[in-house]
Amino acid sequence: MAIEVSATDPPDDGSVGIIETQTVQLFEPPASLTLAGGGTLDAVTVAFETYGTLSPERDNAIFICHALTGDAHAAGRRVGDPDSLGWWDDFVGPGKGLDTDRYFVICANVLGGCQGTTGPGDSSPEPDSPWGLEFPFITVDDIVSVHAALVKHLGVEKLLAVIGGSLGGMQVLEWAARFPDTIGSAIVLASGAKLTARGIAFNAIGRRAILVDPNFNDGNYYGTGEVPRFGLGLARMVAHLTYLSEASIEMKFGRRLQDGDRFAYDLARETEFQVESYLHYQGKRFVERFDANSYLYLTRAMDYFDLAATHGSLPEALGRTDARYLVVSYSTDWLFPTSQSREVVSAMVEAGRDTTFLEFESPYGHDAFLVELDQLAAVVAPFLEQTLESQRGAG
Amino acid sequence: MAIEVSATDPPDDGSVGIIETQTVQLFEPPASLTLAGGGTLDAVTVAFETYGTLSPERDNAIFICHALTGDAHAAGRRVGDPDSLGWWDDFVGPGKGLDTDRYFVICANVLGGCQGTTGPGDSSPEPDSPWGLEFPFITVDDIVSVHAALVKHLGVEKLLAVIGGSLGGMQVLEWAARFPDTIGSAIVLASGAKLTARGIAFNAIGRRAILVDPNFNDGNYYGTGEVPRFGLGLARMVAHLTYLSEASIEMKFGRRLQDGDRFAYDLARETEFQVESYLHYQGKRFVERFDANSYLYLTRAMDYFDLAATHGSLPEALGRTDARYLVVSYSTDWLFPTSQSREVVSAMVEAGRDTTFLEFESPYGHDAFLVELDQLAAVVAPFLEQTLESQRGAG
Repeated sequence: MAIEVSATDPPDDGSVGIIETQTVQLFEPPASLTLAGGGTLDAVTVAFETYGTLSPERDNAIFICHALTGDAHAAGRRVGDPDSLGWWDDFVGPGKGLDTDRYFVICANVLGGCQGTTGPGDSSPEPDSPWGLEFPFITVDDIVSVHAALVKHLGVEKLLAVIGGSLGGMQVLEWAARFPDTIGSAIVLASGAKLTARGIAFNAIGRRAILVDPNFNDGNYYGTGEVPRFGLGLARMVAHLTYLSEASIEMKFGRRLQDGDRFAYDLARETEFQVESYLHYQGKRFVERFDANSYLYLTRAMDYFDLAATHGSLPEALGRTDARYLVVSYSTDWLFPTSQSREVVSAMVEAGRDTTFLEFESPYGHDAFLVELDQLAAVVAPFLEQTLESQRGAG
Repeated sequence: MAIEVSATDPPDDGSVGIIETQTVQLFEPPASLTLAGGGTLDAVTVAFETYGTLSPERDNAIFICHALTGDAHAAGRRVGDPDSLGWWDDFVGPGKGLDTDRYFVICANVLGGCQGTTGPGDSSPEPDSPWGLEFPFITVDDIVSVHAALVKHLGVEKLLAVIGGSLGGMQVLEWAARFPDTIGSAIVLASGAKLTARGIAFNAIGRRAILVDPNFNDGNYYGTGEVPRFGLGLARMVAHLTYLSEASIEMKFGRRLQDGDRFAYDLARETEFQVESYLHYQGKRFVERFDANSYLYLTRAMDYFDLAATHGSLPEALGRTDARYLVVSYSTDWLFPTSQSREVVSAMVEAGRDTTFLEFESPYGHDAFLVELDQLAAVVAPFLEQTLESQRGAG
């Protein structure tokens, strides 16, 4: 199979240039994807992007697992949209943390998502109408099964690395347990082997907001011209707060008012403090780009993820691979506190794996894996280089 | 004026016994209450309870300021309702932290509330219909003005102590600044001189949930048979999470399922994990006892509270009184973290006030001031005794 590099323009802005998202059909009949929750999908469309060039030895491929509301567009710009820089562009590109001059980087939208990969907003085979809540239940296992199938489809037998933060980090852990021979290293950022009770609670609140929105209509809102925007916006406001640390909110907004310096004494004014205004804006923007049903499915997949329960124990799950592990947590992350990473690292050590663990000092809370990219690059770049050297040395 | 003790039965269960909530009309014409936000109320009904007996010297009275969703019923039981123990019953009663054998304890529902004191659910003078969002804007200053008027009405010139947690603690601080000569001591629990940006953000999310509930109907839902139960329930779920620490949620629920030990793989199942079920229950119960408009008014009053801004500076605000200060914070409280208490205490010290500050180790987060009552009593009881002694010595 020929690998085409998606970038069609030479980079002129430090990015990988203009990128087109590609799609591929996997699990087509007579094959099908059997889901961990018991359902089946008879074909799966996968939206993905690639950056850089696969080496002749096919040993320099890195797969990025995106987080809850990410997508395949990790780097570069979309045709005709100069504002469309990928969500991890500061980390993926020529000379960056994932150096596209050296590595072939793949990112794909998750199963159940809403950015090109099969999800509840797509049409079911019959009746030919959007799935909505008839979409089968999906888990992190299923997401990883699709990613692994894509990598194989792209002609890569063994990835140099799989990397991801938050829900993406859960995918990385699951990958190591499920497809241990397909990875040379696994990089887990701001994540854990399971969600905390508090994390489940915040997800439950977000889902509740969507489910009680009258426009939700049991998930059958496609084509009505109305989406559950209040519910989905609220869900995002709540979630967004969990991504920020107390210090970062205080630094960024404090008690400053959005306009002027006097209170309005008006209960209908919902954007009086800057922090309110910001959250409302985040909610509104999110509704424009994300599907409420996908949000339900993916948050539930996140709740359900429990690596130890699925694979017997953490050391058992994490000890199957020969991959090198790199685990990173952030000091003010309270959604996936460092204790979550420590638990994973202890199991890796117990399983006798080659493990590097770092807790970065950062004021940015859970969001740090998306914004603190210089310090991350300084660790990831040599880690990848060593992995490649040792693989080539062993090969 | 004669003071009647509300308790009509002798205590037989360690409580103050059967208690009836009393009401009184204050600020009646030609007087009126001018509000900090610019509005006016021509009469205010205040619901209150008292426990214990006022001493002949009238020097043993303690006023309790309740938190956001509390009420006047701090201790004892209501007539005919054995399950109606007051919200602070473990702390207020014979031989307890606020010892009703020694002290005369008063608690009143806040202005803007929904448990007997004038609020948005009450009828406006004209038209004779519920205020709803036509109720004037109220602040913590106004709440304290009403409380102080009640205390005066009860024949108490100087309180032995004013005590409260959270929004109640804000009232205590405001009291010290606004009516400095009317208190012998001020006890501030799990509170601060202003709400953090994160606190404002969580309040904003709760209000948003109420405002977009179709049953909210711009606050005119009284008498329709429908209340914005989804919105108010959601607001409570979010707020409740901010009252608990990560450790307490993990301890109480972890990842345990509500029924059985297998996932349901069903997105419509909103109460699968115990923590979800618990939060939904909390939301539902709250809707039965609280008014959505009151929630809007009181959370906004909490957002606006800024002791330094109102009174020039914290040392200026807190240095006006001769009262002794006791400030208590809790190690896992992330809504009012200890840093908030330290800020207040620094200002008290700078103002040269007699100040005691304690951070209690507790896993219970913000809720600790409602549940960790033995350790609180062990500090508050001698503090009150010393205050009374020094007042009687000076008198």
